[in-house]
Amino acid sequence: MQVELLIQQMRLRIIPFILLCISYQAVQAQKIASIQSPNKSIELTISQSAEKFINYQVNYKSKEIVSPSSVGFTLKKPSIDLRKFNPISIDSSLTDTTWKPLLGEVKVIRNNYKELKIQLKDAGTSGIFVQVIFRLFDDGIGFRFVFPKQENLNHFILENEWTNFKMAGDHTAFWIPGDYDTNEYPYNKTKLSEIDAITAASKEKDLSVTAVIGKNFVQTPLMLKSADGIYLNIHEAALINYPAMHLQIAGLNLTSHLTPDAIGNKAYLQAPFSTPWRTILVSDKAEQLLASKLILNLNEPSSVSDSLNTWIRPQKFLGVWWEMHVGKTNWALENTKHGANTANVKKYINFASTHGFDGVLVEGWNLGWLDLIGHWKEDVSDFISPYPDYEIDSLTSYAKSKGLKIIMHHETGGSVTNYERRLDSAFSYLLSKGMNTVQTGYRGKIIPRGEHHDGQWMINHYYRVAEKAALSNIMINSHESVRPTGLHRTFPHWLTSEAARGTEFNNTPTSGIQPNHTTILPFTRLIGGPMDFSPGLFRLSLNQFDTLRTQKVRSTLAKQLALFVTIYSPIQMAADLPENYEQHLDAFQFIKDVSVDWDDTKIISAEPGEYITIARKTKGKDTWFIGSITNENARNISFGLDFLDAEKTYEAIVYRDDEQADFEKNPEAYVIEKRLVTRSSNMTYRLQRGGGCAVSLRKIN
Amino acid sequence: MQVELLIQQMRLRIIPFILLCISYQAVQAQKIASIQSPNKSIELTISQSAEKFINYQVNYKSKEIVSPSSVGFTLKKPSIDLRKFNPISIDSSLTDTTWKPLLGEVKVIRNNYKELKIQLKDAGTSGIFVQVIFRLFDDGIGFRFVFPKQENLNHFILENEWTNFKMAGDHTAFWIPGDYDTNEYPYNKTKLSEIDAITAASKEKDLSVTAVIGKNFVQTPLMLKSADGIYLNIHEAALINYPAMHLQIAGLNLTSHLTPDAIGNKAYLQAPFSTPWRTILVSDKAEQLLASKLILNLNEPSSVSDSLNTWIRPQKFLGVWWEMHVGKTNWALENTKHGANTANVKKYINFASTHGFDGVLVEGWNLGWLDLIGHWKEDVSDFISPYPDYEIDSLTSYAKSKGLKIIMHHETGGSVTNYERRLDSAFSYLLSKGMNTVQTGYRGKIIPRGEHHDGQWMINHYYRVAEKAALSNIMINSHESVRPTGLHRTFPHWLTSEAARGTEFNNTPTSGIQPNHTTILPFTRLIGGPMDFSPGLFRLSLNQFDTLRTQKVRSTLAKQLALFVTIYSPIQMAADLPENYEQHLDAFQFIKDVSVDWDDTKIISAEPGEYITIARKTKGKDTWFIGSITNENARNISFGLDFLDAEKTYEAIVYRDDEQADFEKNPEAYVIEKRLVTRSSNMTYRLQRGGGCAVSLRKIN
Repeated sequence: MQVELLIQQMRLRIIPFILLCISYQAVQAQKIASIQSPNKSIELTISQSAEKFINYQVNYKSKEIVSPSSVGFTLKKPSIDLRKFNPISIDSSLTDTTWKPLLGEVKVIRNNYKELKIQLKDAGTSGIFVQVIFRLFDDGIGFRFVFPKQENLNHFILENEWTNFKMAGDHTAFWIPGDYDTNEYPYNKTKLSEIDAITAASKEKDLSVTAVIGKNFVQTPLMLKSADGIYLNIHEAALINYPAMHLQIAGLNLTSHLTPDAIGNKAYLQAPFSTPWRTILVSDKAEQLLASKLILNLNEPSSVSDSLNTWIRPQKFLGVWWEMHVGKTNWALENTKHGANTANVKKYINFASTHGFDGVLVEGWNLGWLDLIGHWKEDVSDFISPYPDYEIDSLTSYAKSKGLKIIMHHETGGSVTNYERRLDSAFSYLLSKGMNTVQTGYRGKIIPRGEHHDGQWMINHYYRVAEKAALSNIMINSHESVRPTGLHRTFPHWLTSEAARGTEFNNTPTSGIQPNHTTILPFTRLIGGPMDFSPGLFRLSLNQFDTLRTQKVRSTLAKQLALFVTIYSPIQMAADLPENYEQHLDAFQFIKDVSVDWDDTKIISAEPGEYITIARKTKGKDTWFIGSITNENARNISFGLDFLDAEKTYEAIVYRDDEQADFEKNPEAYVIEKRLVTRSSNMTYRLQRGGGCAVSLRKIN
Repeated sequence: MQVELLIQQMRLRIIPFILLCISYQAVQAQKIASIQSPNKSIELTISQSAEKFINYQVNYKSKEIVSPSSVGFTLKKPSIDLRKFNPISIDSSLTDTTWKPLLGEVKVIRNNYKELKIQLKDAGTSGIFVQVIFRLFDDGIGFRFVFPKQENLNHFILENEWTNFKMAGDHTAFWIPGDYDTNEYPYNKTKLSEIDAITAASKEKDLSVTAVIGKNFVQTPLMLKSADGIYLNIHEAALINYPAMHLQIAGLNLTSHLTPDAIGNKAYLQAPFSTPWRTILVSDKAEQLLASKLILNLNEPSSVSDSLNTWIRPQKFLGVWWEMHVGKTNWALENTKHGANTANVKKYINFASTHGFDGVLVEGWNLGWLDLIGHWKEDVSDFISPYPDYEIDSLTSYAKSKGLKIIMHHETGGSVTNYERRLDSAFSYLLSKGMNTVQTGYRGKIIPRGEHHDGQWMINHYYRVAEKAALSNIMINSHESVRPTGLHRTFPHWLTSEAARGTEFNNTPTSGIQPNHTTILPFTRLIGGPMDFSPGLFRLSLNQFDTLRTQKVRSTLAKQLALFVTIYSPIQMAADLPENYEQHLDAFQFIKDVSVDWDDTKIISAEPGEYITIARKTKGKDTWFIGSITNENARNISFGLDFLDAEKTYEAIVYRDDEQADFEKNPEAYVIEKRLVTRSSNMTYRLQRGGGCAVSLRKIN
């Protein structure tokens, strides 16, 4: 016997449909409900197996993309297996609203989905109720589990979550090894059946802390492409008070694997509780998938109370940072050539001010760096004691006189207990110095010892820091933190995260940043939120300062410009040293001009691992910026400009690879050209190997 | 070949004696050095075995009490076995000084010891140096290990400490099971060879959190008595930045067993580092052992900077506390009959003020108690939010008008990460309410999860709280914390700790507090420092309020008075309810009169598990107080008063068991008698079964 739900066309809750009529003794799977996305492209079907497992199935344009997959949990305390359920009631509704992100890629976001809420009861004797809420958008689905307040469940410890994603084929996957402590791996492209995370991880010698889970474990966002050209992405949204999810692969089936705590438990919860959303983006066009706002829509609206939010600002900044990575200077004063000295920082402030930047990040400014990394030491730093050669008051005054701010750096070294007990004074200190942006860092093994970067305890830590920062009107850029899950909707002051392999890995002897890396990032890491990749390296070959480098940067200079557009972040660092920018001030003009906050975004063309072209319109202004990048292969790019205003002329400045440019042989060869264009113009250029192209478009009449 | 060190008679460092002359190829043990205590009663001999183990041996009055026992460590990172050494140099010195504790049992403490410092070098290839420092007092020895600053060792992780204590016989032991999380067991009395900690622990059903180590593990202070009447006590002094030590028993050998962290490591250290002192008290008189100040002497002088220390005060207080234990009221407002309500607390304040007390402790005053215990919940309490029926401002004003203070209660429930991140605001809050004493509590499994009450992380936590409290002039009484190791010398504001089975266990259905318990405590738990036992129960049988009690208190009323003398603490709670004291105001007079800070202490007679009689002279006054207690056996006590001033007369008030008194049948039967005495008088009285006697002596001319 089948039960079909009639979906209401308006936002109207239907009366719970009590499924007393289902014959639970049936030996075959029983269909419980089905629902379609607003434009009917996606269809979800819920059924109960003969063994009482609850399965969901997803079709896209009538093709099965997720085969019937069960869900459930194992609780450790109380000890209960929660994987077999009886359905109690079903609700459905339609939502179609819009909202405006404070900072973002577009001005207005539509939130349009059908929702199916199923109340389940443990088929065993516990009497426990669990709800599953599905939301069907036209570009994917999200679902979460809710443990409502109930008599038979209050505090509980989670042993496992058993959410399955059974794929319909052996898709091509873009993946990094499942690891509880780092997401800074290079990406691998293999069939699902060929994934070997242990071998992949063992090649990377440049990660300071790793906790690889096993051969068949990968991280999310996991990007997949089917043989028939369907793009899929599995991730999660609104990761709050719960460990980050990895995926265990067994054949075509992917199963949630939660990051454990120091003693192997997954989460300590209390009803009522809602898990994060499990998300599956789906499209037959890669560009549509990149444009998805599904994960943002599944997060709660901004919780930052200041309705004007005038203190939350998009930013471009320089950093006293890359010069340590290449070995020109050091973080610790105790070593030779301390980078964060007053004279050197003033040089950055001068350059940043001259070119209209908002801030200068200074790493290695405070006592403790000598022991900060690698010793699992707890009392590493108090975050309020500058090195004696870093005259903080003088520098903050100087920065203010130059119209910008210093960005505070809080490198915890992983000693989070130490950071938490000093957080109040650390925040008071930076505010007292006239700063209002902090870059947090978690490089090292976590203290509490045995906890992981991706575990529930740390997820709660990042959240606490965000909450406290909001109260103090402090903006955050978090490094070595968990990969994002759209929380920047709720916390718009949590401007960006690193949480993936960024520019600093150009400095490493092994994989480094391969040319295809930046064509994969938007399909993986950036699905969850903005990334502080820190593009903009201009000196791409080695020189005498590079005591720590053995390889040049695997990118052309023009591609470094294009990354400011293809990698979204409302706070962007220009990563290179002032003296290197001085060598190419004509190209640097693009970094000066480019925006970081947008009214509109057009994904012009994209293919993971191959190429990406994106055009974005500046927030509140009639300027557009286009970025095109390619992998290790040269290619021609051609597209129309129909997103421009009709009957207007724009001045286009094109920063492209020179004909001789090549990421290996001639990376710094670029050409700058100006031309006038209209919406009927075509833009055509060639991306050289490892190359790119950046375009600015300014309306002139 | 033997090397004898000539010990300098004065405090003079001798020139290092380089032991190049030792033949390391010898197959027999080589004596390296020997040293005697100032009065020569104790002799220490150091030797190196053929396998290069370094052994120490202790003789007392020419009898071997510690057979040759080796010392050493295993380091985990770097991975080094540090158990075989070559001696490099030897230093010795004599110290004889005195110092005055701010609060204490005596006015002046003599610190008189011979010191032997041996520099050792790893016999392997690490090149690591370790020092061992021995101090020989006339009542025992202490020794510690020092990792000096050195080229080959900086940060290191400790896997094990291998300090052995090889006993000369199968002594009678007074012991509790080795347990990483609780020291609240009743004591067992068996031969060393009969110890079975698993069986002993399994009998106790009333401990909220246990982490029993194994059958052959016991806690320190471990009290031993040899067949020939020598009393020994093994413990540690100055436990700082290191896990608490337990003892593993194998035959006659006891080996240090350090409390592990969440992942099994013992300690995270950085050279230079000094371990706590390992201590062995020894005497052929039990009274001398109780009078030992060895552990205090091995701690550092007071670090509390206010030289006047006028804010550190001895105290007597009442508590809104026992009424929750017996079930008259509850801690949580959400339950019925909330104890910490304004009217009830005022009742305590009134009674405390009438009878000259300094404070009233109020448990259950703040939001969070419903979930505080047993759920391993992290965000349990903010320590600044009173329950709505607890009008804190009104009550603190009222207390002030009555001349006393409310004592703050910070029950963490074991969620120490939560407490640490709120500590600053919690301390500011209590100060803003006019309080300056806090009772901390750690009842529950520790968060960071996987850490233990006795592990290095928690040892550092207690230390941090003590440091922060000192800066804020706040006094501490810590409950469910690690057993003390004499740190009250360094932190005189850390007035006392619970850290053993105290009065609250009279409330429990299983072992409870047996009559011999309080005759053992001074030989075990109190060797490390003062204890908040909270004596003074007057209602010893059950009544209608006792919804949580099934057994009466196993003590006579007179014994409850005597405990104020026999259990040292500079802050003492009178544990019972005002209405119970009102029934016996004549006996209550002793609690009103008794002091908590002393100029002198005489241990008149003592035998562990049997009886204790102690006389103490009030700090700065000519009053003495005597307490006598017995176990389950009645006995006669008789002693002279030659500690009284010559040619003076004293009024003695004797609070003794009635002839019919018996802890089981007639616990509340007591007699109060007055008489005049001089130093030539004899004091004679009978202690009934489970009974005691308290005497106050006031000089009248």
